[in-house]
Amino acid sequence: MRSETRWDVITFGETMLRLSPPHYMRLEEATSLEVRIGGAESNVAVALCRLGLRACWWSRLPNTPLGRRIENELRRWGVDTSAVIWDSDPKARTGLYFLDFGVAPRATEVYYDRAASAASAIGPEDVDAQRIAEARLLHVTGITPALSARCAAAVRYAIEAAKRAGTRVCFDTNYRARLWSPEAARTTLEPLLPYVDLLIAPHEEARLLFALTEEKERMARALHDRYGIETVVVTCGGDGAYAFSPSGEHFAAPYPIAYVVDRVGAGDAFDAGVIYGYLQQNISLGLEMGMAMAALKHTLPGDLLLCTFEEIEAVRTAHHQTSPSSIRR
Amino acid sequence: MRSETRWDVITFGETMLRLSPPHYMRLEEATSLEVRIGGAESNVAVALCRLGLRACWWSRLPNTPLGRRIENELRRWGVDTSAVIWDSDPKARTGLYFLDFGVAPRATEVYYDRAASAASAIGPEDVDAQRIAEARLLHVTGITPALSARCAAAVRYAIEAAKRAGTRVCFDTNYRARLWSPEAARTTLEPLLPYVDLLIAPHEEARLLFALTEEKERMARALHDRYGIETVVVTCGGDGAYAFSPSGEHFAAPYPIAYVVDRVGAGDAFDAGVIYGYLQQNISLGLEMGMAMAALKHTLPGDLLLCTFEEIEAVRTAHHQTSPSSIRR
Amino acid sequence: MRSETRWDVITFGETMLRLSPPHYMRLEEATSLEVRIGGAESNVAVALCRLGLRACWWSRLPNTPLGRRIENELRRWGVDTSAVIWDSDPKARTGLYFLDFGVAPRATEVYYDRAASAASAIGPEDVDAQRIAEARLLHVTGITPALSARCAAAVRYAIEAAKRAGTRVCFDTNYRARLWSPEAARTTLEPLLPYVDLLIAPHEEARLLFALTEEKERMARALHDRYGIETVVVTCGGDGAYAFSPSGEHFAAPYPIAYVVDRVGAGDAFDAGVIYGYLQQNISLGLEMGMAMAALKHTLPGDLLLCTFEEIEAVRTAHHQTSPSSIRR
Amino acid sequence: MRSETRWDVITFGETMLRLSPPHYMRLEEATSLEVRIGGAESNVAVALCRLGLRACWWSRLPNTPLGRRIENELRRWGVDTSAVIWDSDPKARTGLYFLDFGVAPRATEVYYDRAASAASAIGPEDVDAQRIAEARLLHVTGITPALSARCAAAVRYAIEAAKRAGTRVCFDTNYRARLWSPEAARTTLEPLLPYVDLLIAPHEEARLLFALTEEKERMARALHDRYGIETVVVTCGGDGAYAFSPSGEHFAAPYPIAYVVDRVGAGDAFDAGVIYGYLQQNISLGLEMGMAMAALKHTLPGDLLLCTFEEIEAVRTAHHQTSPSSIRR
Amino acid sequence: MRSETRWDVITFGETMLRLSPPHYMRLEEATSLEVRIGGAESNVAVALCRLGLRACWWSRLPNTPLGRRIENELRRWGVDTSAVIWDSDPKARTGLYFLDFGVAPRATEVYYDRAASAASAIGPEDVDAQRIAEARLLHVTGITPALSARCAAAVRYAIEAAKRAGTRVCFDTNYRARLWSPEAARTTLEPLLPYVDLLIAPHEEARLLFALTEEKERMARALHDRYGIETVVVTCGGDGAYAFSPSGEHFAAPYPIAYVVDRVGAGDAFDAGVIYGYLQQNISLGLEMGMAMAALKHTLPGDLLLCTFEEIEAVRTAHHQTSPSSIRR
Amino acid sequence: MRSETRWDVITFGETMLRLSPPHYMRLEEATSLEVRIGGAESNVAVALCRLGLRACWWSRLPNTPLGRRIENELRRWGVDTSAVIWDSDPKARTGLYFLDFGVAPRATEVYYDRAASAASAIGPEDVDAQRIAEARLLHVTGITPALSARCAAAVRYAIEAAKRAGTRVCFDTNYRARLWSPEAARTTLEPLLPYVDLLIAPHEEARLLFALTEEKERMARALHDRYGIETVVVTCGGDGAYAFSPSGEHFAAPYPIAYVVDRVGAGDAFDAGVIYGYLQQNISLGLEMGMAMAALKHTLPGDLLLCTFEEIEAVRTAHHQTSPSSIRR
Repeated sequence: MRSETRWDVITFGETMLRLSPPHYMRLEEATSLEVRIGGAESNVAVALCRLGLRACWWSRLPNTPLGRRIENELRRWGVDTSAVIWDSDPKARTGLYFLDFGVAPRATEVYYDRAASAASAIGPEDVDAQRIAEARLLHVTGITPALSARCAAAVRYAIEAAKRAGTRVCFDTNYRARLWSPEAARTTLEPLLPYVDLLIAPHEEARLLFALTEEKERMARALHDRYGIETVVVTCGGDGAYAFSPSGEHFAAPYPIAYVVDRVGAGDAFDAGVIYGYLQQNISLGLEMGMAMAALKHTLPGDLLLCTFEEIEAVRTAHHQTSPSSIRR
Repeated sequence: MRSETRWDVITFGETMLRLSPPHYMRLEEATSLEVRIGGAESNVAVALCRLGLRACWWSRLPNTPLGRRIENELRRWGVDTSAVIWDSDPKARTGLYFLDFGVAPRATEVYYDRAASAASAIGPEDVDAQRIAEARLLHVTGITPALSARCAAAVRYAIEAAKRAGTRVCFDTNYRARLWSPEAARTTLEPLLPYVDLLIAPHEEARLLFALTEEKERMARALHDRYGIETVVVTCGGDGAYAFSPSGEHFAAPYPIAYVVDRVGAGDAFDAGVIYGYLQQNISLGLEMGMAMAALKHTLPGDLLLCTFEEIEAVRTAHHQTSPSSIRR
Repeated sequence: MRSETRWDVITFGETMLRLSPPHYMRLEEATSLEVRIGGAESNVAVALCRLGLRACWWSRLPNTPLGRRIENELRRWGVDTSAVIWDSDPKARTGLYFLDFGVAPRATEVYYDRAASAASAIGPEDVDAQRIAEARLLHVTGITPALSARCAAAVRYAIEAAKRAGTRVCFDTNYRARLWSPEAARTTLEPLLPYVDLLIAPHEEARLLFALTEEKERMARALHDRYGIETVVVTCGGDGAYAFSPSGEHFAAPYPIAYVVDRVGAGDAFDAGVIYGYLQQNISLGLEMGMAMAALKHTLPGDLLLCTFEEIEAVRTAHHQTSPSSIRR
Repeated sequence: MRSETRWDVITFGETMLRLSPPHYMRLEEATSLEVRIGGAESNVAVALCRLGLRACWWSRLPNTPLGRRIENELRRWGVDTSAVIWDSDPKARTGLYFLDFGVAPRATEVYYDRAASAASAIGPEDVDAQRIAEARLLHVTGITPALSARCAAAVRYAIEAAKRAGTRVCFDTNYRARLWSPEAARTTLEPLLPYVDLLIAPHEEARLLFALTEEKERMARALHDRYGIETVVVTCGGDGAYAFSPSGEHFAAPYPIAYVVDRVGAGDAFDAGVIYGYLQQNISLGLEMGMAMAALKHTLPGDLLLCTFEEIEAVRTAHHQTSPSSIRR
Repeated sequence: MRSETRWDVITFGETMLRLSPPHYMRLEEATSLEVRIGGAESNVAVALCRLGLRACWWSRLPNTPLGRRIENELRRWGVDTSAVIWDSDPKARTGLYFLDFGVAPRATEVYYDRAASAASAIGPEDVDAQRIAEARLLHVTGITPALSARCAAAVRYAIEAAKRAGTRVCFDTNYRARLWSPEAARTTLEPLLPYVDLLIAPHEEARLLFALTEEKERMARALHDRYGIETVVVTCGGDGAYAFSPSGEHFAAPYPIAYVVDRVGAGDAFDAGVIYGYLQQNISLGLEMGMAMAALKHTLPGDLLLCTFEEIEAVRTAHHQTSPSSIRR
Repeated sequence: MRSETRWDVITFGETMLRLSPPHYMRLEEATSLEVRIGGAESNVAVALCRLGLRACWWSRLPNTPLGRRIENELRRWGVDTSAVIWDSDPKARTGLYFLDFGVAPRATEVYYDRAASAASAIGPEDVDAQRIAEARLLHVTGITPALSARCAAAVRYAIEAAKRAGTRVCFDTNYRARLWSPEAARTTLEPLLPYVDLLIAPHEEARLLFALTEEKERMARALHDRYGIETVVVTCGGDGAYAFSPSGEHFAAPYPIAYVVDRVGAGDAFDAGVIYGYLQQNISLGLEMGMAMAALKHTLPGDLLLCTFEEIEAVRTAHHQTSPSSIRR
């Protein structure tokens, strides 16, 4: 990898306003909603900044209080937002998503209201190849191509620009059933895979999108074999994560969680940990970091991993020494 | 059952304002209280409306903001409240109950302040036999007779009116130790049982009130045998529920709950599920629906089951496929 | 007017979710938003129900928690919502509006996010002429035609149906500069005016839309003269309201307000008061009621006039007897 | 006055839980209620403690979380509650009052729910004459006799005990139209007046209850003349307060208030100021203190005057030097 | 023990304002903080009052709203605060502590901001030996000597005064790694131990501070043997607690907790239970009470054990009869 | 002025955590505190960023959640915080201030708890002269020299560095009576004045600190004359502000405010407006901007002016056209 860079990671995608009722109340009845922001790519960017890395995120945002809020909130946590493209159309809107939090046996329901958002109009001409060239790694996800044909073209353009510049490409499949069908996803995503250096995919998405039938221990290698991707990480929820990489195969187990505060964003926190290790050419460390960060995300409200490096390390190196309700004082 | 009806279910009883401190704080210290409404019969009515049935509930309410609030809240969730009787006495009051939520080993404490409420003055002359005749089923509980002698007479009058009209009668024992003794309850409730078509009783109440000693698997038949009740459902908390009915004996197991948000009203949600099945002459389905609805109620704050039919079906048919923290997006 | 009717007033239009930060905080920073509902026509319907009238409101709503919330909330306050049309398209959305409350010299800012809402797809075929025939009065506003061409056609169709059925027609110009230009509004609205029985228009809108130059005292007559409208009410903000009607010309002065809690919806509350008087053929009373209701609306958070008839009468008949901080106990 | 005493003031009466919606919302809609405590006599006791005096208050309270809350809250602010009588009847209840806060032209509405409270059962045998003898002054109000015949007898007994012991008696008429008629009040209160050393009465109550027709400047002397009361204070709302006393006649003007946060309890705060001056034989100071304390009460949420002596002095001695929004830093 | 006393327990130490974000949010982001008070010694005093004992607590507090708040809050719960020393230096401050609540695997973080607090200036001359002589037991902890050399001297002086007066001495080691090193703690605390009648120490602190290596079952005897302490209680977190006393050796197991609301203060609640038993010369009862109280503290937000005696007894005598979500109604 | 710069304004000083009870509650009673940040210099920096200028602020902050919160919050609003100096001493603390909001006649009370903060240890060696040289203007206030002798030296050093580099110097006297005496302030501040290019001082501070007796219209010139300051702005609260400058003398009147939400930070908002004009060599514009921004600050909760440039311009150019409760929709 190149040593002289402006950022460690550059990423782009849609970040939405997230609205959720307090304490398990329902959207049908709540008289107030908690407001946060969330987007798979910006979640990764924030988590990377918490680790001390330099991250740049961009998108199209309307020049409204809601659009500015998104930029401000990301800047707050250290993300470089200088490349945001402002949409001054008075009708421009931010995407929204509403959350009805559940506990088992009640599922958490997500209601998207993101059609016609400013971000869904991102096109190839919005992609700044020069900026991509100034980063060590480009991170993109399967959500962006699902937003619109223009967005899909932008992702493809960005990946190709990264390839040309020698910037590594990380891709998380992040399949969203409410945005497109598995077939549509496959058609769009498969051609991108040969450009990818680091692929992160849940086991069930690998089966669903790419029609692979391997068991979880074999899936990473299968993806490597079929698409020629150097490093592949396959996540299996409560069963841990597997990696296939030049340094060999690796596995990391999940950390037990006493009570799930909010699991949204756990996958993005995991991605940041994997990228952290990948950029050090230590995918085994990446898996461990990812698992620790995903576990911590479950204990934090909101999409963002507002932890310190020390807290992550405390989990990663705990070897189950931390009791369920430890207090440090 | 008759096919031409105005409502599927008619019910009456006291609905109270429910006041509870936020997040496990104590009534002795809390500076704000959450306000909701609750009453065994209206809880059932709301749950039935969520299932798509037509429910009518009535009571006596003071014409004050608190009384109107109760009507408005029930109307909000689809209950027909057109039969409410308004008490214009300026001293008329709504019943109240205060909740001190606990987690084990601390019990949840309920403090009633319902004496001399408008509802406790309900008498037989308030019962509209014509309305009862327009419903497929009358639902009453053992709480109402415990409120006053007039209330007890009203329940008896309503049950007899139902019998005359061919409206089925559902009765939930709902014993409240803070309202009356087991002996007083037995004296009042036992004469009602021969009129009942569908009895729902917790196993321990069946033992306490009716001096039956059968084990949980045998209690439903015992109640059938002694009182001639066509269909009997006996609930056993964490051990599931048993039914004796013309179609045979049935059992349903409970659904595991990851974290109890609020179990108040779970029994009422269960009743609604049982009635749903009973009205389709499918008591086995009723048990399953009841169990799913009771489980969901544990995940929702407040007395009311603000779920959709789809959410209930998702639990009922899950076969344990739903992981503790699933997200649908 | 006809005496045998199902409703006193029928109305339709878009009702949105309203999201506003607490206590003068800004949308850019707030971590929670208060959730209410608002729509010019449903605001009128709720206020009419508070006066004891029978009101029916309908719209297109998505079958989502947010759509159901709107119906439930209106039903809560007594509005007949049985004619709501449910849009089952999974992408259907409710309109939203965000409020940044100000105090002078800071203006209150409204940000609409209502494009492509379910309501904006209302068309003539959604209008049920039979229902309109069952009401004494149809109430429509200038907002609906601004939403889409289909909506404009629906308004026209409804007005014509009312005319045919002998249902009176009330129209509030309700010009929204963020939705269309004065020219576009004029083109669409002017052809409707000959069908209108009761027109309500702010003085500045009458000047802006219809190019009338009369002073406020003369504007009602001018509108009557030009368009042949039987009864015209012209509002002048802090300068009161004027009416021209078969019973002569009338004026009502505004009531002083100690502190403005929330003025959104004050115009709709006024409309309800005017309609109340109009239906009694007493437009003078209508102006007084409207002024009292508009004043009360300023003291209540949210779009809805959650007052009692007695409270409105207390203001209307006060003759400045009520001191700024009176307590009744 | 006697110099060796245990308390400066002893008082008794009913203290209720006070429940009010946040920020001008209505009881019909609010999803949370702020909880505070309030009672005319205990409000005075708390205000006296803020001035550095020793106050003892007692009542009957149920031994429930709500009863204990009342005692605890008063003890918190320095009131001696050791004489509280605990009612262990499981059905014993605290009085409640609900507040619908208004701003002009909307009145603030108070809804009492205090019938059958533990306090309304106070009788003469609950009055501890020895304790009264240990205080310099007994403070009672016209609310207590309105609660029940037993309460009226208790007040009479207490006043007579004070007389025997040489403890001065302060009486505030505190007429509550929702508790009794003017005629009933007159019949009960008039016989008490000859025992009273310090009478505090609003001008309109003096007219209503005692059929006096004097103008506000003459009313204090008229009450002195008719009933032989040594010191009389007549309050006139926004027109200030007048006193007739052995040291002559006095007047104090009100202090302007920029925004009324909560005026409930302002009269009680005034009483405490008057008593403060009276105990120093300086009724002129008492009027000034009372006016300053009443003004400050308008700026504080809740019934209680949680100010410091220094803050009161800052208002009393300000001579309009304090600008509307001064900051001390 | 002496029977004629003014208090059962006297104690002193620092009580701080406690500031914590709501619902697992982080200090880095929270827009509001919950305010409570906490201090090891006053926590014990409050818990003792809940048991019906008489407790006196004192400290140095600044005469500011924050200092007065601490006194008022403790007085609220029945603690005698008449001996508080008021620091009128305008720069005097209260100690603060900030809490970042976690759930496993995230630890709860405590951030102290207590340097230069008024309490840290407590010196021997502030200790009132006469008051200590009026109590049955003096309770002190290892936190106070860690605050300053003056504080350490005050603790030593108080213990010696207790010894002279025949007041028993209870000491909880309460080691705080953020205040001092194990070596510093040992040097200061070891000389105090021969004066102690009742020692309470976590097993790990006994090992860390006193270099004892005994297993948990043997540690209490080891502390007795080395320092001559009559009664020693050694706590072992989830493994229960062991006592060595004149009546023999005792053990109590912990109670299972369904969900940890807030474990801060659990050790102090335990201390109160042990003292309760000790004062009845029943250390076995004390262990049981302590365990029940510690378990209940986990279910209550804040440092203070706001339970009733009946609730504690319900846990202590439950024999696992209480189901995880019992409701008493 | 130099055209090639990195920032328009550089500033430094202490930024504190600000804790205030909600809605006029008192610190003695509030159960939650709103958390914001505030510091005279960073308030100016944020307001400048809202105007589109580039501002850099630095300070010493502890590497704790509270310290990071301050940096993050300022970065959120666009301030360059890259020069912050992190204090890794585990005992390092942030300054705090507590606010008891009042309305007249109750004053707003500020309680500082800022002694020994990390910022108060700022010394000359922390000042980066190179950064100062990269800005067009250095902004400092009279608060910083009041914090410590080291801080005073740092301010002096910074001003001298600015002088050497040709960076303009703006100084706001910002006298804080709770930090030092007028005499101490004069001794420290007077020697700085000859270096100042733009002085901003309230009229009363000019009299108090510099013993000038001029009336408000003459004070700016007097300060210019005595200390040789090129541009002087004298503020007079409700009487507007006066400027003496090379372009002549100017005056701006204040804007009326309907209801004061929070006036803290109004002076800092004013400073930003003045600097905005000054940097364009248009002090008349600066006064107008400052007045508009100060007025807007009164309508916003918190220290920070979270307005847009458009909102400021709307006030500045309104000519009283904006009615007290205008809505833009």
